[in-house]
Amino acid sequence: MFDPTPILAGDRHALARLLTQIENAEVSAAEALAALFAQTGRAHVIGVTGAPGCGKSSLVNALARVLRRAGRTVAIVAVDPSSPFTGGALLGDRLRMRDLAGDPGVFIRSTASRGALGGLARTTADMAAALDAAGFEKILIETVGAGQAEVDIASTAQTVLVIEAPGLGDDVQAIKAGILEVADVLVVNKADQPNAENAVRALRGLIEMAAEGRAAPETAGWKPPILQTVATEGRGAEELATAIEQHRDYLLSSGVMHTRERQRLRHELTARLRDLLLDKLVTRLGDGHFEMAVEKMLARELDPGSAARQLARDA
Amino acid sequence: MFDPTPILAGDRHALARLLTQIENAEVSAAEALAALFAQTGRAHVIGVTGAPGCGKSSLVNALARVLRRAGRTVAIVAVDPSSPFTGGALLGDRLRMRDLAGDPGVFIRSTASRGALGGLARTTADMAAALDAAGFEKILIETVGAGQAEVDIASTAQTVLVIEAPGLGDDVQAIKAGILEVADVLVVNKADQPNAENAVRALRGLIEMAAEGRAAPETAGWKPPILQTVATEGRGAEELATAIEQHRDYLLSSGVMHTRERQRLRHELTARLRDLLLDKLVTRLGDGHFEMAVEKMLARELDPGSAARQLARDA
Repeated sequence: MFDPTPILAGDRHALARLLTQIENAEVSAAEALAALFAQTGRAHVIGVTGAPGCGKSSLVNALARVLRRAGRTVAIVAVDPSSPFTGGALLGDRLRMRDLAGDPGVFIRSTASRGALGGLARTTADMAAALDAAGFEKILIETVGAGQAEVDIASTAQTVLVIEAPGLGDDVQAIKAGILEVADVLVVNKADQPNAENAVRALRGLIEMAAEGRAAPETAGWKPPILQTVATEGRGAEELATAIEQHRDYLLSSGVMHTRERQRLRHELTARLRDLLLDKLVTRLGDGHFEMAVEKMLARELDPGSAARQLARDA
Repeated sequence: MFDPTPILAGDRHALARLLTQIENAEVSAAEALAALFAQTGRAHVIGVTGAPGCGKSSLVNALARVLRRAGRTVAIVAVDPSSPFTGGALLGDRLRMRDLAGDPGVFIRSTASRGALGGLARTTADMAAALDAAGFEKILIETVGAGQAEVDIASTAQTVLVIEAPGLGDDVQAIKAGILEVADVLVVNKADQPNAENAVRALRGLIEMAAEGRAAPETAGWKPPILQTVATEGRGAEELATAIEQHRDYLLSSGVMHTRERQRLRHELTARLRDLLLDKLVTRLGDGHFEMAVEKMLARELDPGSAARQLARDA
């Protein structure tokens, strides 16, 4: 049986061990998360994404410092969905975060996964839940890039920050439309560069296009602000923290927070039920029936839909 | 009831209609695919991916021309996983493909989806199945970029081409390690540019690193070749077609083709069973039980794993 006491009492080693178990998808992690579940749902989870070179890590650091000055505890999870080669970049980020690392109110973790995409979003959400249960008030999830992987990971957050910087080349390349649709706060970092205004204008245009495409009418009450920062000097970080707080206030007062949390839990229950029901079926039928259906499909004697219906009926 | 005769007889309008139904995830598409399933499994599905600007579309065209000269029928599916804004680029590709479009042995289709990622890979696989049943011998699936979305889509192909070009900036950026792990044939396009040799060398280094990370020992018998092409002049396209054919021969003679097809069908059966079993459970229990469990989870009275087990037991 998993004992949640050390983690709830702030034992950082116990927390780090749990995060590793989550990363490795160990059975013990599922047990621990079930036991900690009652203590979750209190943290503010903030996703931060943007193209490489936009100064994302510096901005996360600057933001963490502002949050610490305001007395909040902060956890940072740096996620790299693009395989092991970029481990160096994450290491660099970690080194840059060294000034925060001695602070007991800060917890920093890097993670990279070669697993399936859904797997990485799941891992990130589970890590956020563990940090939430451990009492961290602000959880910053930092992802590299702006592809679908980042959209999925960002979607596990309550507030999504998208960072842009002037001069990263074609803006439509650097910042994909898909990520703008889930953005709650936009930041043009390196705003001391001459072409920062162009980046702001380009973003404003893209936001208006994305707003038309926004699927959820629930978010109609929030218009993503565009902020300008110079992360290396900490400029604009206070204003950014304020905008993030305003977004949380909006989520709470509008009821959107509650709606999304219900949706999230419904999805999770559905996913778990699917797996559980399949496991039960395979246990009941034995592998034989299943493999026989696969052989018939291979021989093109049975199509996949009919095969599934037969197996479900036989159970 | 769906009548497969027109599609099997080569009716292009019927085929185009079915592809649209697949794109829109209409119920009729599932019925049609079930009816056509017996006629699938004959085409060679080739995934083509690479960073924007590498000349991927020109290369696909050049390859299609070579395949046509060899008497093969060719279908091209251009997939853009990154939302509606890039519709222009796809349109541009279509215009460039105009020289192929009058040929009855060629079928060209663009698709973009805003749906979930798994959804897009699924859509692409279903489109390939429809084109396969319609008798196209070579199906080229072209995706933009080299992110996780492209890896997933490429994974539905039997042979995966990854295209690089000199001077697209940092090679490790332009071509992500994740896609190299699924690459079967590598191409440096624009090989008439001065720094083409550097790109070849960089790729060779990356391949060796990726080879160490290759999960499947089954692919040990194939070493991805690196070819050089100048797509706009058709240079190297014959050699590329030969390398693709050699990969297919390897897949067939080694038995890997059969192993992968079995794996693919097993996954499909599993996915369908999961959905079907959940539907049956919800129908049997009614929405009430499910929603009550969600409410208890929201109140943190019940963790998701226990909720799923209770529902599965009650059924």
